[in-house]
Formats: sequence, structure tokens, C-alpha cells
Amino acid sequence: MTVDTTRNQDNLQASLTQVQNLLNRMQLVEDLVHKQDMPRQQLVENLVHKQHSAELSKKLDQLHPADVAYILESLPLDERLRVWDLVKADRDGDILLEVSDAVRETLIESMDREELVAAAEQLDADELADLAPDLPSQVVYEVMGGLDLKEREQLQSAMSYREDQVGGVMDFELVKIRADVTLEVVLRYLRRFEELPDHADKIFVVDDEETLVGVLPLNKLLISDPESEVSSVMARDVVTFLPDDDVGDAAQAFERYDLVSAPVVDSNYRLVGRLTVADMVDYIREESESEVLSMAGLKEEEDLFAGVLASVKNRWAWLAVNLCTAFVASRVIGAFEHSIQNLVALAALMPIVAGIGGNSGNQTITMIVRALAMGQMQLNQAWRLWRKEIGVSVINGLVWGSALGVLAWALYGSWQLGVVMTTAMTLNLVLAATMGVMIPTLMQKLGRDPALGSSVLITACTDSGGFFIFLGLATVFLM
Amino acid sequence: MTVDTTRNQDNLQASLTQVQNLLNRMQLVEDLVHKQDMPRQQLVENLVHKQHSAELSKKLDQLHPADVAYILESLPLDERLRVWDLVKADRDGDILLEVSDAVRETLIESMDREELVAAAEQLDADELADLAPDLPSQVVYEVMGGLDLKEREQLQSAMSYREDQVGGVMDFELVKIRADVTLEVVLRYLRRFEELPDHADKIFVVDDEETLVGVLPLNKLLISDPESEVSSVMARDVVTFLPDDDVGDAAQAFERYDLVSAPVVDSNYRLVGRLTVADMVDYIREESESEVLSMAGLKEEEDLFAGVLASVKNRWAWLAVNLCTAFVASRVIGAFEHSIQNLVALAALMPIVAGIGGNSGNQTITMIVRALAMGQMQLNQAWRLWRKEIGVSVINGLVWGSALGVLAWALYGSWQLGVVMTTAMTLNLVLAATMGVMIPTLMQKLGRDPALGSSVLITACTDSGGFFIFLGLATVFLM
Repeated sequence: MTVDTTRNQDNLQASLTQVQNLLNRMQLVEDLVHKQDMPRQQLVENLVHKQHSAELSKKLDQLHPADVAYILESLPLDERLRVWDLVKADRDGDILLEVSDAVRETLIESMDREELVAAAEQLDADELADLAPDLPSQVVYEVMGGLDLKEREQLQSAMSYREDQVGGVMDFELVKIRADVTLEVVLRYLRRFEELPDHADKIFVVDDEETLVGVLPLNKLLISDPESEVSSVMARDVVTFLPDDDVGDAAQAFERYDLVSAPVVDSNYRLVGRLTVADMVDYIREESESEVLSMAGLKEEEDLFAGVLASVKNRWAWLAVNLCTAFVASRVIGAFEHSIQNLVALAALMPIVAGIGGNSGNQTITMIVRALAMGQMQLNQAWRLWRKEIGVSVINGLVWGSALGVLAWALYGSWQLGVVMTTAMTLNLVLAATMGVMIPTLMQKLGRDPALGSSVLITACTDSGGFFIFLGLATVFLM
Repeated sequence: MTVDTTRNQDNLQASLTQVQNLLNRMQLVEDLVHKQDMPRQQLVENLVHKQHSAELSKKLDQLHPADVAYILESLPLDERLRVWDLVKADRDGDILLEVSDAVRETLIESMDREELVAAAEQLDADELADLAPDLPSQVVYEVMGGLDLKEREQLQSAMSYREDQVGGVMDFELVKIRADVTLEVVLRYLRRFEELPDHADKIFVVDDEETLVGVLPLNKLLISDPESEVSSVMARDVVTFLPDDDVGDAAQAFERYDLVSAPVVDSNYRLVGRLTVADMVDYIREESESEVLSMAGLKEEEDLFAGVLASVKNRWAWLAVNLCTAFVASRVIGAFEHSIQNLVALAALMPIVAGIGGNSGNQTITMIVRALAMGQMQLNQAWRLWRKEIGVSVINGLVWGSALGVLAWALYGSWQLGVVMTTAMTLNLVLAATMGVMIPTLMQKLGRDPALGSSVLITACTDSGGFFIFLGLATVFLM
């Protein structure tokens, strides 16, 4: 008796390679048939082709929906759609839920109305709600028509919340019991289930009005005397959420208190749904992803194999902003053209001042954005952090600025130029620190995402600022 | 009967504010005593002081260790140590585990040897292993001396793996059963436990040699007939990990297959430990954090309230690298000083070419780093992705480059300058795309972290490259 162990990452890579090999072989056959159009040849080759195709579809059947999703995401569009065609129709729904938004779009585009309805019909109300925004509205209506009253209500409830609200993420798989029964009764009740919901680590204890009065952890149920009453074993100190709570806050609570599942209640403590750690893990991953991307000025997670035009669209907005800020920086230099003409060394030295400022500002802003996202920094602490950053930047400015000042002196034989260099660098680092604290703090105060394009914005400040400070000082003291 | 609901994020903020208020009031009293040194006055004030202090320590006792950790992280050093002093000694260990590395250091520094030993003694072997690297070695030896043989073996095993290996993260809280008993027997066996391990959603089924033969999910145990044998109910298709597996891969498997806990086995499938989703959530959070930070060239997560010098140390390495690259860029410009002297407009326009290249290169590199981190991009796909990025950059170069070319023409009245501008921008964007794909791919191939300083490196390429391309073209065609 041995375990069928699934050694994951390695296995998954092996599966991907297998799929790619089969696709390649199918392509080879097709190319061959295409080239030599002898009917006999074609027939033989087609048999081989069918064999590969059958093998591929068998391979896909054995994989977990999440693994199929991973493979679809790792394949370029044409191969992706070929694999998607071979996936059994009854797994379409689960797989659509697992793939990234960008890839989901390409898959849905390739399906007709009936296929989409069939895929959507297999999903629970909360899963359907996740998928609904990406589906043609006709498909959503058709699927809704087939739901019973309770499911339709759940779907409508889930769709009435945003994706970043607990109500938009919670599911409705609730196992509920009363407080005045014995554990023995609970055990008998559970045996009537065909299966318990995923991630059910606790059962919800409610009263006649469906008000939550406690939770019974399965661990407690298992170790306690079956004769005891639920009320004497259950936990009353429960972490609950409201449907309009922020999912990010909920995810932090899951992380902080090591939760597996938690009840969602309305304002009267009536049980309305359930959050699980699986949803929170997905959220944490997506959130960190969107933070990284939006700092770099990418609009959303991009399909790695997206067409060139889709990628251009995803990136052009912040490039355009950057273009404007670069133009401003250029005009700042333009204003000092006379000084540069007089002392051309300025042109060579000014990018150093601007560049170091940009790098240092990016370090500050990254740290502040992170602290705000983690809720570790209150807005009223901005003042204190700013003073610290100023300290850091004055030290860096004096140390590195002096080094560069000496270098400038050595290169161009003017100690005055060196002093201007050191001063400009220190001042630009102070500017970088100030803007690095101010930009995200202001964004947060205005209710905007502090990460959004933060890198572009801080660089804009340190470029224009750096040029102005350096060329300005040079003009005043060296001309 | 109502639930003591803990509405988290709000509650936590309220707790933090409460703590801060108490600290402020204590400070006020101290300032007062300090100013007016009348003995009577002092006595009265001291009473008030004691009262605040008692209230604060009561408040702290009610909070979850993770919440105390959060409060400690949110407070500046002096207030943090004051709160830390008021935390009951028997909770020190748990809280030290929860705080960030940087804050942990400040707390450990404030404790003497006995306090540290007392704190460490309360921990499990796997927790102790996490803490050990931060503790003075004398403390570790002393605590080790108090462990029994099995615990000492576990500790040594845990400490022999790196933090990013499964063996360094797993715990040893294993509930094991045999396959040939009935569920009734299992249920009776579990009732003998005082409590089950956290996140126990499955029991491990082993044979006489401790070899893993399957797992019994608690959900299955609860819904199945108590007369059935474990072997007929257990799952044989188990996701397992080896102690030297990468934790990142394990975290992705937990995310992909929605796991709560999973067995760790040695190469003979003998059960040696257990991974839980709580550890994986922590890992995912830390990993995404370190990705963001290392892209910006920050060495590690920084204590928000770290001293100025600690911050300087954390950041100086990449600033120094940046200084060198900025110097190179400056020398590139220096080589063209003659051209700039002839046409000073070049000095004003060159930062635009460099800046847009940097921004675009950062977008590309962010996407590639992400895809590599998520295992969604294989190294053999770099070629295909590069071609796509080239497409994106040629379009962006021609569109935005032309716009800027026209602008340069309008500003300086030279259409030739406009053409040079457009060409230089397109070429620099192509360079940005090439380096954006190449840098992280090479880093990955060399076994380095592709995120590390990627932003600094790509900017270095697009700065020097942009200046060289633009000034070079201008020198050839305009001089």
C-alpha cells in the first residue's frame, strides 16, 4: 500500500512540458499534412494526430483544475485555445474560476453562448457571482433563470457587493446547529451530510432567529464528551465580519489570528455567509501583485502572452504621464541653457543629482506605501517619519554628495563646482524624502491607492527638482 | 446570550489609540514630576501614573499576541519598549514570534538573559527554531539543555534547514493513526487529547514503520459510518512535501489546491512533520514584501521607526551601485560635451529620452520578475516574450517619439533634431525592452533573485544607453 504522492512544483512543470511536447507533435503533423496534400498520407497522419490529441485530453483530465489553469496561463494564445478545446466541458466552470482575469477573457471570447451557459450552470452562487462580470449579460440572465429562489437571492446578494468587500467574496455553505443540543446529536446530524463544505473547521451555532451565538470548532467537537451540550463547548469569542467590510482588513485578520474560516453576519448578528482562508490567500496574492504592478505604472495584471496592442493599452497611461513630467524636466533644463553653454560640465553632472534623488525617493516611497498597505502607519505619524527620512537623506547627501563633489573637482578642476554638486545632491535627497513621504500620505488621505504610479510621480519630482536645484545653484554661484 | 464579536481592524485601531493615549498621559505625569520636584506633588502624581500603567497592562493582557505585536510595530522605539515592559513575561515568547524581524531585534536587545530564557522555554521546538537565529547563542544552549531528547532532535532538525526550506518551517504536531482500525476507535482515541493541533484538518495514517499511507480528513471522519475502517475512508492521493523542498513552491501548492495542512515526508515516505496554511500565508506575505523592497533596492524589511543610522545601512548598498551607474551615465555625456556646446538643446532633450526609457523598462522588468516569481514563465519562453516587448516598444517609440520629435522641432526650429529625437527614443525603448527581459532572465539562470535591485539595474541601462544613443545620433547627423 503506497501513497500516490503528488510532488507538486516538479510534477506541474513535468505536466506542462508533456503538454507542450504533445502540442508540438500535433503541430508537426499538421504542417506535414499541409505541405504534402496526398489524401493517403493525410489519412495516416491524421490517425497519429488523433492519437496525440486523445493522449493530451486524457492528461488534462487527470489534472486538478488549478493545474489546468496554470498550464493555460503558461501557453501562448493559439496553443492555449487548442488545449482549452480539449478540456471536458463539465470542468470549464471550475477552470475559468482559477485562471487570471486576463487569461479568462481570452478563454471566454473563444466560447459560444451555449458553452458558457453550460459552464456557468455548474457553479455555486458565490462562484457565479465572481464570474458574472466577465460573462455576456445574456448568459448571466439565462443561468439565473435556472436557479432556485434561494440561490438567486444569494447570487444577487453577492453581486451587489464590490470585489473588495467581504460580501463579494463570502460563500453560502453554512453548517448550522442549535446551542441546546448535545454533541452526540451534532455528530449524528453531520453523518447525514454527503460531504462538509471545504475548509469547514467550525460549525456555526445560531438561535431561532438565525442570530449567531457562537461557533463549535470541529477540533472541540472531536475531543469533547459527546454527552455535553453545544453551549458548554462552543466558543463565544468569535471573529466575525460584516458584508461591507474591506476584504483586505479581513485578510489581515485571518493572517493575524490564523483563521481557517469565519462567519459573516449582518448588523443584527444574523448569520449571512462565510469567509475561508482560501479566498484570503488568493486576495493576499492578488493584492501584492497589484501593488507591485501599480507602482511601476502598469494598469493591471497582464496576460504574459497578450497581443502587442493589448500590452500597449495596459501601459500607455503612465507612459503618457511620464512623458509630460519628462517634458517639464526638459523645460527646467531649457531655462538654464545659457549656464550650460557657459559651463558644459553641468550637462554631464546634472543627471547624477537627478538619478540618485530618484533612487533614494523610490526607496522611501516603497517603504511608506508598504507600511500604509499593511495598516502599520497612521497618517498622524507622517510627521515623525518625515523627520527620520530627512535625517537619512542629509547623511546620504553629505556622504555621497561629498564623494561626488570631490570627483567633480578632480574632473573639472573647480572646487566651487564640487561644492555646488554636494549641496545640490543633499538638497535633492531632502526633496526626495519629503515627496516620498508626502505623495503616498496625500493619496491615502484622498482615498486613492497610495501605490498607484508612485514610482513615476516620485521620479518626476526628483528629476525636475534635481535639475532646478543643481542648475540654479550653479547659475547663482558659478556664473 | 450574545457573541463577543471582535470587529477586527476597527477594534485593533481603537486598541492602538487607547494604548497611545495611556502612554501620552503617563508621559504628561512624568514631565510634571520632572518639572516640579515637590515630594508631595510627586507622590500624588505617581499614584495617577501607577493607575495608568495598571490600566495599560490590563489592556495588553486582553489582546491576542498578534495584536500586541501589531501595536509594538506601530510604536516608536521608546514607547515600544515601555509597552514591552508591561507585557506579562509568559506571553513574551508568542509575541516575539509574531513581530517583524526588525522589531524583534529591538525587543530582544532590551531583554536580559534570564528573561530571554524564560520566553524561549515556552515555545515548541519548531517555534524555537524560528527564533533561535535572533537569540544570543548562550540563551539557545541554556534552553536546549532543558529540552527532552525528542524535542532536542526536533529543534536540531528544524535548525538544520534554511528558512526558505520546508524543513525550516514545518511543525511536529502530528496526530497519527493506523489504517486497520475503525473510525469509532479513532473517535475514542481523539477524545483522549486535551486539544488537537492548530489547523488540524486531517489525521495522518501511517504503518508500523511510520510510513505515510494516507490521510483521514476530519470532514470525512465526521460524515462517515463509525463502523468503517480507516483504510476504506482515507484519501490516498495526498499532496506531500520533502523537508528540502522550497517553501515558495509549497505555498503555491497550498494556494493552488486550497490546502489547510499537509504532511512532510522523508525520501522513504516516512512522516517527519507538517505544514499548515498559517505558515504559508505568512510566507506569501513576506515574499511579496521582499519582492517589492528588493526591486527598489532596500535590503530588508525596515522597522518603520528604525534609527536613522539603521536605515542608512539598509539602503546604502544599492545607492552606492546607483552612484556608480550614474557616474557612468555622466561620463557618457562627458564624451559628447563638444556636441552639447554646439547645440545646447541636446542637454535639455536628453533626459526625456533616458526617462521614458527607464519608465518603460521598469514596466517590462516588473512584469517579467512577477511571471518568474509565480513560475508562470519558463526560461525558454524569454525569446518569445522579448519579441513581444520589442513590438510594444517600437509602437510606443514611434507614437510618443514622433510626438516629442514634433515638439522638439517646434521648440528649436530644426526638423533634423526632431528626427534624431524620434529615432533615439525608439531605439532606447527597444534597448529597455531587451534589458527588461534579459536582466531578470539572466539573474534567474544564475540562480539569483531576479527582483534584486532590478529597478536600479534597468534604469542604469536606459540612462547610459539613452544618452549614448541620443547624443551619438545627434553628433553624427547634426554636427
